Amino acid sequence: MSAEYTLVLLRHGESEWNAKNLFTGWVDVHLTEKGQQEARRAGEQLLAEGLLPDVVHTSLLRRAITTANVALDVADRHWIPVHRTWRLNERHYGALQGLDKAATRDKYGEEQFMLWRRSFDTPPPPIDPDDEYSQAGDPRYAEADGDMPLTECLKDVIARMLPYWESAIVPDLRERRTVLVAAHGNSLRALVKHLDGISDEDIVGLNIPTGIPLLYELDGDLRPVTAGGRYLDPEAAAAAIQAVANQGKH
Amino acid sequence: MSAEYTLVLLRHGESEWNAKNLFTGWVDVHLTEKGQQEARRAGEQLLAEGLLPDVVHTSLLRRAITTANVALDVADRHWIPVHRTWRLNERHYGALQGLDKAATRDKYGEEQFMLWRRSFDTPPPPIDPDDEYSQAGDPRYAEADGDMPLTECLKDVIARMLPYWESAIVPDLRERRTVLVAAHGNSLRALVKHLDGISDEDIVGLNIPTGIPLLYELDGDLRPVTAGGRYLDPEAAAAAIQAVANQGKH
Repeated sequence: MSAEYTLVLLRHGESEWNAKNLFTGWVDVHLTEKGQQEARRAGEQLLAEGLLPDVVHTSLLRRAITTANVALDVADRHWIPVHRTWRLNERHYGALQGLDKAATRDKYGEEQFMLWRRSFDTPPPPIDPDDEYSQAGDPRYAEADGDMPLTECLKDVIARMLPYWESAIVPDLRERRTVLVAAHGNSLRALVKHLDGISDEDIVGLNIPTGIPLLYELDGDLRPVTAGGRYLDPEAAAAAIQAVANQGKH
Repeated sequence: MSAEYTLVLLRHGESEWNAKNLFTGWVDVHLTEKGQQEARRAGEQLLAEGLLPDVVHTSLLRRAITTANVALDVADRHWIPVHRTWRLNERHYGALQGLDKAATRDKYGEEQFMLWRRSFDTPPPPIDPDDEYSQAGDPRYAEADGDMPLTECLKDVIARMLPYWESAIVPDLRERRTVLVAAHGNSLRALVKHLDGISDEDIVGLNIPTGIPLLYELDGDLRPVTAGGRYLDPEAAAAAIQAVANQGKH
């Protein structure tokens, strides 16, 4: 199989709530200074590799938007067309949004905690519209309308992400554009599961590190030429994947 | 006449070459720290006024793109749709790009200097494709193709800006979207000349300050309800307009 299309995935850099170990989901927190630095480094890696996006797709959350803005500015590609969609948002964490991860584990026990964090098809309890971290009434989600989730498992994320992949990202690839997708741990896991044909069981163990561009070369049938793609900084990726796996542990 | 449509114009904050007093044109320089601060202040003004853009149009130059990114992030509107076009770029300064303004005046004399800076229909000499500040071969201008200028007077800027106004910005206004245009001194002068019906003679004396949102409420025929619009910070605008008028003087 030969490489026909070029896709680059980029998970946002560290956010204020990553640093505080809170469930974030659709809460629109800022990058930390470390997260900004990760975004700059991602831009340097794109530039060094000569991997220059022709178009960028982002979520509606500022940690992904800022990561894309910063990385593209460093890569001198700040001027490319931009598309944004709620369908690339992080998984909605329901009633867990804003809760401390360690405290949640202590309160509900390891089994329930891991079920909510990692189960393929068990969403957390839905968020109350009156919850301070609810997105009810947020004008940016007016277009989502009846599809707006109150909680999600990874299966739900796949269901709302794939229509955008098919209708908006694939057409850019077919036009031979190098496509950057700047998004989140779970919306990118959803996409990687689809691309690599990963099973519902195996996706549970797959983590995507923050701020390291992940290159997928795709063949004419949009299948990865190399399964799992290639991180532009493989050593940093391996170290970060281990760190993500340790999240929520003491 | 009643206000039907809402348009906000924003000239980018101070750039590195504004600060050095060089002719910039299409050279893609960064904002200074002061310019970043101006962009944050513009976002605060939009927020304080409750003037929340639904869509943003920018040039392909990073000083306008970054100004929009920063201002919209501060105003919590980082997630709105983005459109970029070379037709909102600064006036192309031809062979003057990269030259010191004061030295250019000293070399060519006050009369020629002011003719190049302010004349409605006298462009500077065209830039050589081999000039280090030429945009020949820059991939971002591939779509401009045969329309790509080598130098421009304000009349030329109007001619290439207006088709975008009609085809891309007006439709957004007609959809009742609050439109932000983040651009440059001369592309915004071109638009203001059109909106307010300013004569070729009178536009010469009109300056637009950096980083202060300029609100135009337009009637159903896209005519300004208040001629000249309204700066969200009128005192700062008045002071800055005076400062721009002094540029190039000792």
